[in-house]
Amino acid sequence: MSKGKVTHYTNIEAVEFGPTAPGAKIRVLIDDEHDGAPVYKLRMIEIDPGGHSPDHSHPYEHENFVVEGKGQVMIEGVWHDLKVGDVVLVPPGTRHQYRNAGDTTFKFLCGIPVDKYMQKEK
Amino acid sequence: MSKGKVTHYTNIEAVEFGPTAPGAKIRVLIDDEHDGAPVYKLRMIEIDPGGHSPDHSHPYEHENFVVEGKGQVMIEGVWHDLKVGDVVLVPPGTRHQYRNAGDTTFKFLCGIPVDKYMQKEK
Repeated sequence: MSKGKVTHYTNIEAVEFGPTAPGAKIRVLIDDEHDGAPVYKLRMIEIDPGGHSPDHSHPYEHENFVVEGKGQVMIEGVWHDLKVGDVVLVPPGTRHQYRNAGDTTFKFLCGIPVDKYMQKEK
Repeated sequence: MSKGKVTHYTNIEAVEFGPTAPGAKIRVLIDDEHDGAPVYKLRMIEIDPGGHSPDHSHPYEHENFVVEGKGQVMIEGVWHDLKVGDVVLVPPGTRHQYRNAGDTTFKFLCGIPVDKYMQKEK
């Protein structure tokens, strides 16, 4: 059963991604496991200046909204500049990477399907 | 087939809700019909000072992130103050309403499932 939730995103723990994404942290704002979200997980990604996510691909999409800072997203080899208020759809199965392009933390929302609706590797 | 997308949210048309939500507009940032979003529609709701959404309920959830201004959300009769950076999960089947509580436009992201994953009225 889904429970309601009202909180500030900074009240949710920021966890380091690890060596494949230097300078990057993630906060899981809403998910299925803890919150009973039916179809979608909402996460905040925070990348320090000089940091980036891995150049990778997976069978599920990303839906992004830029909240703070300046960055770039690469989709299928093409880099796009990102500023606050930009919206990004990275389609399933598409090569992509994010990086900070400024001197403050680059923060963006990143939604993905919950596990039961996630397209799996073939 | 899902297409990629990178744009600023203000490049997407804001449409008035109509008489049940005075002062409220919606921009559909990412959806299934136009963008091929697999599971989730991302919308921006913008409510003018004094405006509000209807007091209503539906069998699908809302996932919100507050982007600008001050507002309030009612969930099952309880009002919660909202500021920039607040995260809200309104569970499926829950009575809810949003209203502007400041003197500037109150803007928040509002995600819902695409039609094929939307719980229908019983």
